Amino acid sequence: MKIKPPYLMFLGDARDQLAAKTANGVAFWRPDWCLGQVRLKGCKADIGLPDIGLEDAVQNGVKTLVIGVANQGGYISDEWSQTLHKAVDLGLDIASGLHVSLRTVPGLEEAAGAKGCQLFDVRHPVETFDVGRGHKRSGKRLLTVGTDTSVGKMFTTLAIEKEMSARGVDCSFRATGQTGIFIAGDGVSVDAVVADFISGATESLSPANDPRHWDLIEGQGSIHHAAYAGVTLGLIHGAQPDVLVLCHDPGRPHMRGTPNILIHSLNETIEACEKAARLTNKNVKTIGVAINTSRMSDTERLRELEAATAETGLLAVDPLREGVASIVDQIIS
Amino acid sequence: MKIKPPYLMFLGDARDQLAAKTANGVAFWRPDWCLGQVRLKGCKADIGLPDIGLEDAVQNGVKTLVIGVANQGGYISDEWSQTLHKAVDLGLDIASGLHVSLRTVPGLEEAAGAKGCQLFDVRHPVETFDVGRGHKRSGKRLLTVGTDTSVGKMFTTLAIEKEMSARGVDCSFRATGQTGIFIAGDGVSVDAVVADFISGATESLSPANDPRHWDLIEGQGSIHHAAYAGVTLGLIHGAQPDVLVLCHDPGRPHMRGTPNILIHSLNETIEACEKAARLTNKNVKTIGVAINTSRMSDTERLRELEAATAETGLLAVDPLREGVASIVDQIIS
Repeated sequence: MKIKPPYLMFLGDARDQLAAKTANGVAFWRPDWCLGQVRLKGCKADIGLPDIGLEDAVQNGVKTLVIGVANQGGYISDEWSQTLHKAVDLGLDIASGLHVSLRTVPGLEEAAGAKGCQLFDVRHPVETFDVGRGHKRSGKRLLTVGTDTSVGKMFTTLAIEKEMSARGVDCSFRATGQTGIFIAGDGVSVDAVVADFISGATESLSPANDPRHWDLIEGQGSIHHAAYAGVTLGLIHGAQPDVLVLCHDPGRPHMRGTPNILIHSLNETIEACEKAARLTNKNVKTIGVAINTSRMSDTERLRELEAATAETGLLAVDPLREGVASIVDQIIS
Repeated sequence: MKIKPPYLMFLGDARDQLAAKTANGVAFWRPDWCLGQVRLKGCKADIGLPDIGLEDAVQNGVKTLVIGVANQGGYISDEWSQTLHKAVDLGLDIASGLHVSLRTVPGLEEAAGAKGCQLFDVRHPVETFDVGRGHKRSGKRLLTVGTDTSVGKMFTTLAIEKEMSARGVDCSFRATGQTGIFIAGDGVSVDAVVADFISGATESLSPANDPRHWDLIEGQGSIHHAAYAGVTLGLIHGAQPDVLVLCHDPGRPHMRGTPNILIHSLNETIEACEKAARLTNKNVKTIGVAINTSRMSDTERLRELEAATAETGLLAVDPLREGVASIVDQIIS
């Protein structure tokens, strides 16, 4: 799988800006790849790209229509279908992060086959994986982990990739979720693989590499999340990280989606993740804490970062404010 | 899903007795359900049931042909196909534990539809599940856990079900793997569900129940297995067990399939499983250790059980030798 840029971002009839969160993330991290946006009637989202038609997009070199939006009702409407068919007729590949497969759109798979276009359903992995082996692979690996889901693991990993790349460090962002896959052009939705293959899929995503090369692996879920911890644990085992970066959002009263389960402390989370990681890499260590302080005043912000350092003895930054240079200093020192 | 007994056990052209391990397990635990076996030319397995033809089976009231055997080469051969088609023609349901779906046998799904027969692919769950919620459900739950895969978790759970049922305790065996599902007639192959739904599928398998009712949930994998720990952790969270029983096979030099990872001690395994289980049930406790001593002399056996008790402070039995009465005494005391 290799999704080919440049991209045209399909926003459909997104009901609000949040519904286009994925498209937003792709446009933020890969501005050079995103040439325009397509919005249908009633679309309430705008990711700040020029509105261009499919024909213009093709003439400007676009290779892939990316569906980076949540669809209303969970099915693909007739209006959407028409746009997708038109894209394929014009020779575009389509990459989708929808829960429902592009293959359910009547005639689309056949049309794509006839035109030699590819359909990428990133939430429906088609690869077959081996089960995890747990053997040590060459190369270095960083994994982001979190006190909860949606606490900035992808953002932090990409910020580290950007900083390392700017310093000339040989590194690769390894995507494990839909937005990350559009940003990387490839990857594996680990929460969508068959449960037996979580760690095996992660091993294949991050194969043996040059001893100085860094794989920067996007984390998922939380080891203490009652719904997703299995994904997180398999991902930790398969990633065999040398370095963990803990991500945290201080605003959460409880784990997302499970109101009766409180957020564990930073140290409890670090301890659980390191313990799990030692199964496949005895030398794992946590190097820093990335905190989302976007809803805080400057005073609160600094207090939060200081408290995190006091608790953990680690560097604490907001990747969006301080950046991750100090974390990268620690990693490649 | 409800697989209807009585069963006819299909052994195909099994290359040896081990290839019919699943069929053997079903015949051992549900002898009243298994009326006969079907063996093709070259079959090297025999599970001790009468060899009967499909027509005789139907006349004797058989409802389901159960494929409890590993297929050579991983695909369904023409010879197998003929038998499966004949079964459907005679009105039998088919239940399969094969990795390859019955739906890949040309014409079989259509033939089954026309005859009103059901095809159960227990390794290919078709249900959709919610993600785990982690809320407390009424009723009592026991889960078996292990120091490795294939260390007797299903056997131990079924032995406890048998003992509890004999004492009139209201209980249900909850199957999470293919053999268990044939034995229960229903269940969920948790290692075959999409990774996001491991704990959610387990929650649906063991719904709220009468406060005195015991769900006896078959464990899978090991929390320290580099390939399968994600499944184990999601299963623990979804099961929210009140009681754990640890299963162990002392003969293992290392974890099955990962030669570089040693077996963790009984106490390390108990500690890790209890810690995980406390996320959804603060009152979890481990009640005993079930050890497979089948390859040991009587002296070795007793020494092994004593050592397990000395290490853990818990009852230790071989369910096949001592039975599990003493464990059940602890649970329902």
